[in-house]
Amino acid sequence: MTKEQLFQEIKKKRSFLCVGLDPDLSKIPTHLMEFDDPVLEFNKRIIDATKDLCVAYKPNIAFYEMLGSKGWDTLEKTLNHIPSNIFTIADAKRGDIGNTSSYYAKTFFDTFNFDSVTIAPYMGADSVEPFLKFRDKWAILLALTSNDGSKDFQLFENAEGQKLFEKVLERSKDWGDADNLMYVIGATKADSLGKVREIVPDSFLLIPGVGAQGGNLSEVVKYGINATCGLLVNSSRGILYASNDENFVQAARKSALAIQSQMEQELRNSNLI
Amino acid sequence: MTKEQLFQEIKKKRSFLCVGLDPDLSKIPTHLMEFDDPVLEFNKRIIDATKDLCVAYKPNIAFYEMLGSKGWDTLEKTLNHIPSNIFTIADAKRGDIGNTSSYYAKTFFDTFNFDSVTIAPYMGADSVEPFLKFRDKWAILLALTSNDGSKDFQLFENAEGQKLFEKVLERSKDWGDADNLMYVIGATKADSLGKVREIVPDSFLLIPGVGAQGGNLSEVVKYGINATCGLLVNSSRGILYASNDENFVQAARKSALAIQSQMEQELRNSNLI
Repeated sequence: MTKEQLFQEIKKKRSFLCVGLDPDLSKIPTHLMEFDDPVLEFNKRIIDATKDLCVAYKPNIAFYEMLGSKGWDTLEKTLNHIPSNIFTIADAKRGDIGNTSSYYAKTFFDTFNFDSVTIAPYMGADSVEPFLKFRDKWAILLALTSNDGSKDFQLFENAEGQKLFEKVLERSKDWGDADNLMYVIGATKADSLGKVREIVPDSFLLIPGVGAQGGNLSEVVKYGINATCGLLVNSSRGILYASNDENFVQAARKSALAIQSQMEQELRNSNLI
Repeated sequence: MTKEQLFQEIKKKRSFLCVGLDPDLSKIPTHLMEFDDPVLEFNKRIIDATKDLCVAYKPNIAFYEMLGSKGWDTLEKTLNHIPSNIFTIADAKRGDIGNTSSYYAKTFFDTFNFDSVTIAPYMGADSVEPFLKFRDKWAILLALTSNDGSKDFQLFENAEGQKLFEKVLERSKDWGDADNLMYVIGATKADSLGKVREIVPDSFLLIPGVGAQGGNLSEVVKYGINATCGLLVNSSRGILYASNDENFVQAARKSALAIQSQMEQELRNSNLI
C-alpha cells in the first residue's frame, strides 16, 4: 500500500485507528474455546466488528509464536480475513545482519504479504535496508517507545544534546523516505512529538500507548498531525478486551467507535476532511 | 544450563565452539531434497557430525520462520536432536514491552526449551527482564555486533565518551548478572573486547563473525578469555556450507575440527585445561 492510498483510506473512514490483534488465550471469552482455533475465531469477530472503523491491523507476532506452528497458521488465516484496503503491520520488532534481515523481510512481505514490519534499529543500516527493497512495503522503525525502559537507551544523549531516538530518525533518512519508512513513537511522550516532526515532518508515525498505556489522543494530534495525517494510533487491549463475555463483539465495536469519533473530530479540526 | 555446567562442557570438549544452524534451502546439498523435510535432515547430519566438537548450537530463527508453520516443526525436531549437555541459543533478537517480551520468553524457554535467547536491547529494562525470570535460562543481549551497521548507533557516544554498547553493558548489570546474562560482541571488533571486559569481566560473550565475517580467533581469546573461558565463538556458514555435495558431512566435521583444535590450543595456553 502506498502513502497516498493510506491517506485516502483515512479520509474515507474518517479514522486513523490501528487495531492491535494481540489475542491472549487467557483473556479470550470462554465460549470461543469450543472452536478448533479459538484465536482465529476471536480475531475474525474483532475484525468484522471494527473493519469499517480502522485503517490498520497490527498483529503482535509474539502472541502467535507462543502457540507454536499452529500459531503461524492462525496468523495466516487472520491476515486472509483482513480486507485488502486495510494496512497490515507485523509487529515483530525484528532486525539482524543484512543476510538474515532479508529472510525476515521475505517472510513477512512475501510469505505473509504484510504491508509493513516493525524493526528494532539497534544493528543499524544493513539490518533495516533489506526491508526497504520491496515495492509498496514499509519498515516501521522503533524510535521512541512507550514503555518504561525506553529511557534506558533511547534518551542516551551525545555531546551536542542529540538523543539516540533522534539519531535513529536522522540516520534512517539516508536509507529510505516517507514512502517506505514509518516510526514508532510512544504516545505517552507527546511532548517529544514536536522534536520528531522537526526531523521527519512527512513520515507516518505509529503511535502505541493510547489507552492502556496512558496516552492522550488530542496531544498526539496537536504535535503529530501533518498534511497526510501522518498518524496511525494503535489500540489493542482497550478494544479486544472491552468485555470478556458473549457481548465482546459489541463492546469492542463500541470502544473502537468511541476512538473513531474522536479521530473524526480531530481530522475535521485539522481540515483534512 | 548453569554457567558452571557450561564451563565443565568447555573443558571436557576442549572447545568453546558454537555452531550456527542457519539452514538455507538454496545452499543445502541437492540430494537431501528428496526427503520430506530437507532442512531437518540437513540439521541432523550437521549435529551428528559436530556434536562432540562444539558446546553450543545456535539456530537462527529467521531461517525457520521463512518456512512458515512447517519451519517451527523443523525447529522443534532439530532441538530434540541436540544432546542435552549442549547449550542452545535461539538467535531471535527479540525484545518488546514487558507484557510481550514475557510471551517471547515463554515461547523460547517453555515451548521450545532453549537455554537462551538473543535480545535487542533498544527498548530497555522491561523488554529484557522477563527473560531473566527463568531458572538456569539466559538472555544474550546484543551489545556490539559484527555487521557494518553496528557503527550507526552502537558507537553513539555521550559527553563523557561512553558509547551506547558500553551503556548497554553497564545498565544491564542492574537487571542480571554473569549467571543469566551474556552479550553478543562482534569478533571483528577484537580491539573493543578489552573495554568490554572492564565492564563485564565475568560474563560469557557470544562472538559471531569468526570466519565468514572476518574475525580472528587468537585476537578474540587474547582480549576476551576469562577464568571460566567466558567465550562462545560462533561459526555458521564456514561449517554448514564447507561443501554442498554429498560429502558435506565430512567437510563440516573437518571445518569444525580445525576450529576445535585451535580452541584446544588456546585453552591450554590460557591454562584452563
